[in-house]
Amino acid sequence: MIDRLAKGSDRENLLEKASKLLEIKVNERVEADIEMIAIGGFSPLEGFMGQSDYVQVVDHKRLANGLPWTIPITLAVSTETAARIKVDDQVVLSSENGDRLAILTVAEKFQHDKVREAQLVYGTDEEAHPGVKALYDAGDVLLAGPIDVLQLPHHDDFVDYRKTPAEMRALFREKGWRRIVGFQTRNPIHRAHEYITKCALEITDGLLIHPLVGATKSDDVPASVRMKCYQLLMENYYPKDRTVLAVFPAAMRYAGPREAILHAIARKNFGCTHFIVGRDHAGVGKYYGTFDAHYIFDEFEPSEMEITPLFFDHTFYCKRSRGMASFKTSPSNDPEERIILSGTAVREMLSKGQIPPEEFTRPEVAKILIEAFKIPNYAI
Amino acid sequence: MIDRLAKGSDRENLLEKASKLLEIKVNERVEADIEMIAIGGFSPLEGFMGQSDYVQVVDHKRLANGLPWTIPITLAVSTETAARIKVDDQVVLSSENGDRLAILTVAEKFQHDKVREAQLVYGTDEEAHPGVKALYDAGDVLLAGPIDVLQLPHHDDFVDYRKTPAEMRALFREKGWRRIVGFQTRNPIHRAHEYITKCALEITDGLLIHPLVGATKSDDVPASVRMKCYQLLMENYYPKDRTVLAVFPAAMRYAGPREAILHAIARKNFGCTHFIVGRDHAGVGKYYGTFDAHYIFDEFEPSEMEITPLFFDHTFYCKRSRGMASFKTSPSNDPEERIILSGTAVREMLSKGQIPPEEFTRPEVAKILIEAFKIPNYAI
Repeated sequence: MIDRLAKGSDRENLLEKASKLLEIKVNERVEADIEMIAIGGFSPLEGFMGQSDYVQVVDHKRLANGLPWTIPITLAVSTETAARIKVDDQVVLSSENGDRLAILTVAEKFQHDKVREAQLVYGTDEEAHPGVKALYDAGDVLLAGPIDVLQLPHHDDFVDYRKTPAEMRALFREKGWRRIVGFQTRNPIHRAHEYITKCALEITDGLLIHPLVGATKSDDVPASVRMKCYQLLMENYYPKDRTVLAVFPAAMRYAGPREAILHAIARKNFGCTHFIVGRDHAGVGKYYGTFDAHYIFDEFEPSEMEITPLFFDHTFYCKRSRGMASFKTSPSNDPEERIILSGTAVREMLSKGQIPPEEFTRPEVAKILIEAFKIPNYAI
Repeated sequence: MIDRLAKGSDRENLLEKASKLLEIKVNERVEADIEMIAIGGFSPLEGFMGQSDYVQVVDHKRLANGLPWTIPITLAVSTETAARIKVDDQVVLSSENGDRLAILTVAEKFQHDKVREAQLVYGTDEEAHPGVKALYDAGDVLLAGPIDVLQLPHHDDFVDYRKTPAEMRALFREKGWRRIVGFQTRNPIHRAHEYITKCALEITDGLLIHPLVGATKSDDVPASVRMKCYQLLMENYYPKDRTVLAVFPAAMRYAGPREAILHAIARKNFGCTHFIVGRDHAGVGKYYGTFDAHYIFDEFEPSEMEITPLFFDHTFYCKRSRGMASFKTSPSNDPEERIILSGTAVREMLSKGQIPPEEFTRPEVAKILIEAFKIPNYAI
């Protein structure tokens, strides 16, 4: 288990040293990476990737040591900043509000091959893709090396729901769960999501609802609103003794299939044995095929992933069988027998204060979203 | 793939030979074993077990070569019959109606350790247990050796639903399914069973409904009645392109956990990659703990089973969440919020011609069972 968070006198010494080092301000996305590395969520990474890892990950979806890894975790700086830093230097990485987060020991400095990374990792070099946009906005030089983390990025939200991989594993052990399924989401949980999580729980011992709360694109439902929905569902519709709600501090990359693999690896680190992969997992727009995030798992041996993906199709309420179903399990091919709402239709209903059918979303969840919708700029 | 069914001129020669051999009449249960061996359903067995396999299976749940196997597959004859047979003899095994089914080349002859087998395989030596009763009723000497099958036992029922492991695997290949979940049942399919099969189908590509139609105890619902229920469900409530109904010709042993392992191994032979293990799988009375058939899988490595068990809890309609759920997934602990009927309660309703709640069973299934109940001696 990787733990890069400095403690005790080590930390005192590092804090002392940090005050004298060149400071690099990082944005919210890099902060999230620092946190993920620090707590072991990105294990086996101990810092930002060097060139051999970077090239292997981009080209072959593996670290230089052969382990599956699909998205570069890198620290990009401007050419100007890079010019002031030599290999073997140490620099301090600070948050936007000035907190000194980590000391990076610079092991390598190399060119950021942005277009190639965009094409291979995101499958597109279009700036309209939010992950590609963030990549293009980042600096042209990558600094690599291990980090020693002085403090985790400060959060005043979801404090009770922030658990490190070590804490999560301890909790699962305490509960006596051997098979734990992780559910990644950046959306409210409607009946379709509730259904797949419960299907997955039927064949496991426990369910980790693990919403991503790092940076998302501006038209995703804000984490604060989503958390209210999750809490309500936990209280009323999930079994309390078999479900844990905790937050996943990573930022979204919208890299579709490649991000599904990263999400699975991270959940393995958090102690999950199974991981739900839905349709268009971590997708955006029309960049990825509906099931590309399923197919990519075929590129890895189950034994090297060390977590079992559970693949789900599009689910909905099926009037014929009077229950939730999917395109795979519904006995009916008649669209009239399915209760399916498009994202656009749901947003329209909610913005008008209308509650969608209870077969689509729990009415209490709809009410939270309707309230949130009244606040300007909450595009839900 | 084992195939012990003789063909062409080989078969002609064996038939010729069979007419001159000592004949042993076998009962319906042994017929089912001959069929399972012949078609490769009991692969890697090529005949009836010799002493080293027998002892290892009874004592250690493995064949002599180390492969998992939990129930002896043996040919028991009376001491009188055994006295007429020497090792290296060949005998012909005939059905009760006189069909010559198979030639056994006797490799070994040894004592049938019935009480020990009862205690270790069935966990009880009580004759009230139907599997133990059948064991006690069998002969005191075991004949072992490979069989050459002249013809499969004659069946005039479910002819369209009888598929060998090779045929089933070919069908799955043709459908392009890679993950296939098998469902063993000796009961009508009510909503609870429908729910777990559909949960399992959500994470696989196809579902094999594989009811056991070999000998069962007299108070089980007859296979002919059950098949009507399955066919109706296939027609109306299961997705036609993702579900296959075929029959499993084995006889029930009611050996609970040990039989769950045998059922899983047999379904692997039929091409399944996943296998549903419910509560009290293959159990009878109160001989086994509700989840003993789950725990026994821990005694084997997943890699040696070569089929993934999917373990399910007791399922029912949950009024709180308005859908099917289990003791694991229901948010409610209030018995008032569950629609659960005991076997006794259901039988009583059906015998009075009453249709149980549609959350318990599909009304069309209830009607079939009510009709069947009108026929004397159909104890459903």
